[in-house]
Amino acid sequence: MASEPDRRLRGPVRIVGTGLLGASIGLALRDKGVEVVLDDVSPAALALAVDYGAGRHPAPGDAPQLVVVAVPPDVTAAVVERELATYPDAVVTDVASVKSGPLERLRAVGADVSRYIGSHPMAGRERSGPTAARADLFIGRPWVIAGHDDISYQRAAAVEDLALDLGATVVPMDPESHDRAVAVVSHAPQLVSTLMASRLRDAPGEALGLAGGGVRDVTRIAASDPGLWVQIIGANAEHIRPVLTALRDDLDRVIDALADPAATGAPRAIAETMASGNRGVERLPGKHGSTTRFARVVVLIDDRPGQFAALLTTIGELGINLEDLRLEHSPRAQIGIVEVSVVPEHEQRLVEELEGRGWRIAAAWA
Amino acid sequence: MASEPDRRLRGPVRIVGTGLLGASIGLALRDKGVEVVLDDVSPAALALAVDYGAGRHPAPGDAPQLVVVAVPPDVTAAVVERELATYPDAVVTDVASVKSGPLERLRAVGADVSRYIGSHPMAGRERSGPTAARADLFIGRPWVIAGHDDISYQRAAAVEDLALDLGATVVPMDPESHDRAVAVVSHAPQLVSTLMASRLRDAPGEALGLAGGGVRDVTRIAASDPGLWVQIIGANAEHIRPVLTALRDDLDRVIDALADPAATGAPRAIAETMASGNRGVERLPGKHGSTTRFARVVVLIDDRPGQFAALLTTIGELGINLEDLRLEHSPRAQIGIVEVSVVPEHEQRLVEELEGRGWRIAAAWA
Repeated sequence: MASEPDRRLRGPVRIVGTGLLGASIGLALRDKGVEVVLDDVSPAALALAVDYGAGRHPAPGDAPQLVVVAVPPDVTAAVVERELATYPDAVVTDVASVKSGPLERLRAVGADVSRYIGSHPMAGRERSGPTAARADLFIGRPWVIAGHDDISYQRAAAVEDLALDLGATVVPMDPESHDRAVAVVSHAPQLVSTLMASRLRDAPGEALGLAGGGVRDVTRIAASDPGLWVQIIGANAEHIRPVLTALRDDLDRVIDALADPAATGAPRAIAETMASGNRGVERLPGKHGSTTRFARVVVLIDDRPGQFAALLTTIGELGINLEDLRLEHSPRAQIGIVEVSVVPEHEQRLVEELEGRGWRIAAAWA
Repeated sequence: MASEPDRRLRGPVRIVGTGLLGASIGLALRDKGVEVVLDDVSPAALALAVDYGAGRHPAPGDAPQLVVVAVPPDVTAAVVERELATYPDAVVTDVASVKSGPLERLRAVGADVSRYIGSHPMAGRERSGPTAARADLFIGRPWVIAGHDDISYQRAAAVEDLALDLGATVVPMDPESHDRAVAVVSHAPQLVSTLMASRLRDAPGEALGLAGGGVRDVTRIAASDPGLWVQIIGANAEHIRPVLTALRDDLDRVIDALADPAATGAPRAIAETMASGNRGVERLPGKHGSTTRFARVVVLIDDRPGQFAALLTTIGELGINLEDLRLEHSPRAQIGIVEVSVVPEHEQRLVEELEGRGWRIAAAWA
């Protein structure tokens, strides 16, 4: 990875909290030969993480160079404060999803924040516990390093190196900007997805039978863990609320327009809402941060093992790189519907070559 | 397909409107040797669809057995009325996304609804125009047949046969139930996605750089065509409004809780919202209508042509069927992140076999 040899972590690294993130960081560091000390308020969780090879039990005289606090958001600041006091030579970071609150609380209690820098690896939210831990969890993922003025560049580098050593992409961002950013790209979308999914609770079964890819996409993350999210949302309420309030104002305008959809101004209100959504979604960066638009080709496959691989082998043989791929299943038929995205220059050739080989194309558009 | 030979369409079938749906129906019927007559208010669009092989120009003396009206929602009822009057022996259907309105308007003007039955193929919303038309567009997709009391079983069968001949799955549903169903599983999710995407318009670029799979899923359909959706939403306002109003009430509770997230009742309000979303999304049927839960395994691949196919070939060789697949790209690194879903019984073996072959597993959970 990109770090220079002279900056690499030498350890020992102490990890407090052996859930998915803590145990995964431990596994990844152990793979690199770094000595890892684990700790957890739950002796059972700690023993399990040690069994999984994420590190060793703490011992008297441990003198960590770096402490990683990977505990639930509501206890993060308190644990960081304790670790700063216990290990006066260590740099301490945490991996909680909200970054302003812990720093503010640490400053309020007079903790030595010249040795603390928060961070946030954007990985692993869908599952939990040390048994799900993986050394490769962070590869290719953004890892925010939430810098502030009271820590030196040299000390912050220890946390940056941790992220780089684990294969993540370092994203420097101040705590306030981080919290505003995750409010709009993560926390508000979570709540919006949840609120839409709630509307499915009382829908008739026959209505759910008509559900297509759209509602599935919108509500997918509504399956997230309530316990974790109550803490995340509570901790970032200040920044989530204005996003949701603005959304509610837009929603009220739509609801008003729907009361009399033929009234003067109503169609325009709906059209402007739709166009505004178009412009918003266009701002999301694509593959590897690019904003290139791709052509999409929908191929029908029989729903049997090997069919899908055969299709992708064919595409690979044509030398065409897949930019994106989505698999849908027909709600009732034994048919797989595969939507592949390619650069627009390849669309026509892909369709012709696939049709020439007997594949059925249900749609193609740039 | 499932229709008996004595019920098969013999044609000629007249299709009014040569956009994506009309032209695709034409192509599919032509493939089956059925005579197709096309018509369109735009001579250029008509000529193009004829060029594409979707059917022939109309001629004096045409006596269609079946008329399919595939025009924009706002003119659907008027065109159906005209077709019923012009071809007094034909059964007429339409393919608009909203079904109560046209039937009510036809009854109000005294049209012969004993020969009209609305329908709604759930396909093709993402693109438009005859050049995107495909004979296979409807394969494996639900096609709602919106029955009512004034049409005989025998006549309705002509429309059912059309759907079956085109490879769709017939879903009988009365017009009111259809409109309520699409309000909650299609139209409200569209607006919710759009409203969330609108919040991205003013977000800082660095915030968008942190966008992960969640916000992308939630906002994907926000890229939909405003012109079409203004008509759909306007036509089904009556049923969309109560869904959005209930959602707004839930949203208001969340916004209130966020004003003072530590206040008595606030964490509980957020937890209940999250749990309610969990229950809603669990109701969506999975593959082929089943509600089985799948295990998921996240595999890292180099982002080069052929890597993806190699992975799927390996999975195919293990005899493990893919239930679902999602491809993510790392925002900055040249890494592909592939999430495959398999039946839970196969998870452990899949992980072991892939790791044994040198694939990197970033996560696995049931």
